[in-house]
Amino acid sequence: MDAFLHCTAGCVSLAEFQISLTAPWNKPSSKPVRHILPSCWLVFVIGAIQRRSFGKGYSAGMAELTHMIDSEVFLAFSTYATIVILKMILMSPVTSYFRLTRKAFANQEDTSLALSHEDHKKLVRVDPDVERVRRCHQNDLENIVPFVVIGLLYALTGPDLSSALLHFRVFVGSRLCHTVAYLLPLPQPSRALAWTTGLAATGSMACRVLRTSLYL
Amino acid sequence: MDAFLHCTAGCVSLAEFQISLTAPWNKPSSKPVRHILPSCWLVFVIGAIQRRSFGKGYSAGMAELTHMIDSEVFLAFSTYATIVILKMILMSPVTSYFRLTRKAFANQEDTSLALSHEDHKKLVRVDPDVERVRRCHQNDLENIVPFVVIGLLYALTGPDLSSALLHFRVFVGSRLCHTVAYLLPLPQPSRALAWTTGLAATGSMACRVLRTSLYL
Amino acid sequence: MDAFLHCTAGCVSLAEFQISLTAPWNKPSSKPVRHILPSCWLVFVIGAIQRRSFGKGYSAGMAELTHMIDSEVFLAFSTYATIVILKMILMSPVTSYFRLTRKAFANQEDTSLALSHEDHKKLVRVDPDVERVRRCHQNDLENIVPFVVIGLLYALTGPDLSSALLHFRVFVGSRLCHTVAYLLPLPQPSRALAWTTGLAATGSMACRVLRTSLYL
Repeated sequence: MDAFLHCTAGCVSLAEFQISLTAPWNKPSSKPVRHILPSCWLVFVIGAIQRRSFGKGYSAGMAELTHMIDSEVFLAFSTYATIVILKMILMSPVTSYFRLTRKAFANQEDTSLALSHEDHKKLVRVDPDVERVRRCHQNDLENIVPFVVIGLLYALTGPDLSSALLHFRVFVGSRLCHTVAYLLPLPQPSRALAWTTGLAATGSMACRVLRTSLYL
Repeated sequence: MDAFLHCTAGCVSLAEFQISLTAPWNKPSSKPVRHILPSCWLVFVIGAIQRRSFGKGYSAGMAELTHMIDSEVFLAFSTYATIVILKMILMSPVTSYFRLTRKAFANQEDTSLALSHEDHKKLVRVDPDVERVRRCHQNDLENIVPFVVIGLLYALTGPDLSSALLHFRVFVGSRLCHTVAYLLPLPQPSRALAWTTGLAATGSMACRVLRTSLYL
Repeated sequence: MDAFLHCTAGCVSLAEFQISLTAPWNKPSSKPVRHILPSCWLVFVIGAIQRRSFGKGYSAGMAELTHMIDSEVFLAFSTYATIVILKMILMSPVTSYFRLTRKAFANQEDTSLALSHEDHKKLVRVDPDVERVRRCHQNDLENIVPFVVIGLLYALTGPDLSSALLHFRVFVGSRLCHTVAYLLPLPQPSRALAWTTGLAATGSMACRVLRTSLYL
């Protein structure tokens, strides 16, 4: 019941916030405010969460992960998986940034976020730079998600620490190279090689999982 | 060997079922049957699985998760992750529904599912409503999958129960708001704020994971 | 610090390799070499990783997964999840293959990989076969990722071994049927039924997770 109230309160506060914004939002004078608001909201939400967390003993129970899954390999997996997932999440704001600066939106209602006086119907269009970032994001999804799943199972098979670190580092390095090669863009063999390296690391871990624990 | 037989049996039964359907399928008189069949199949498969499961002591061993990972935080994660993943899965049937009602298909062979007498070649087309649902599904994939991965690692770092619940509830609430705001659609700041809130919750959990278990 | 050096070394070697390739790459005489290079790289990387792994006691600690999570259900989950994720990863090379043979690329810089003397600007185009493979890959992402997440939680609830195996086998079988039905393509009811079967297996597991461990 508490949970339900919690969720409802969040929704209601969001809706209220939005209603209070809608009116001044459409006034031409308030336009510079627009891009500041989402970032203010982000700072406010992170702040609120962290404040409540700290107030309730956030930093207590440090390193309990070490007791729970008592393994350096798992700690390493946890670190590299978080890094590579954060890299993937970062593609979303990059897409938003390109959509706002290139003025190429996917939905009619989004065009109100543009700071231009052009005809808003023309802003629902496809832009090559936005599409490039989206393809990069899609490729991340198709490669990083399998890595995380297989990496978790691999970490549980109890591999040697140094070979586990090698796999994780090769994968994370190859994905960073891939993103750089896709967004700049670098001439072609580079991106294909980065992609193949990542795939090889995932495939090698999958081999190990299947050899250790084949149970059909 | 048993596993192989099991899989083959499943494939063969699917194929037989399909062959038995193909002939009457193309008769104009059997058209109203078409939309009923997939749902019958769904009910039949769930029924068969549950019947076998119950027969083999399905409800025995209740709450063994509590013994396995003895932590309320993990139970909470498990519940919220399942809810948010089910919400994501639900976008697939919604897409199918819009494809069938708007008569906008992606593949030539799918047009035989339409209940119309129009030229079937024209039904392979892009519809704005279908594309809106697909973008919403894609955005779910890009946000919910990172949440699940980072949430799992976060639950293993042994956080305070109340702050873990706060993170999970804020994320699930923000995704529900996001879907409503995308599909209705609501005017713009609402969707951007819901998206930012979800991102903030994931980011805050990632901070905690990296601070607890940094092992490069 | 060691980790940082490791990553940098990887990036530098990739960059050097690429620079050494760029010059002969654009000569018409070296064209047959192009398609061999990425596969050589794949073999080289897998070989290097496996050699270092073996050198450091790769096959030691066999079956430590069994001690870590002492459960046949978890072993079964690990096997089936790896198989189905490998199937999903395989769609990436299939897409590349179709892009190269159909000469339909997504980026301007990729056209240098084509073995043709046509105008390279015309090769940035949409091909129906490539789009079919990509839709199949996208559908895999939308269905296999939820299966893996819910399957992991399901395996931790301590279900009966036979019913767990039934769920995993039905899902993996249905996804293999789905891919075959999508790529050939088979006439329509087959793909819809395979998709519904997979959804039903995931839904049945989600029911079990929510009934065992509801903690809102």
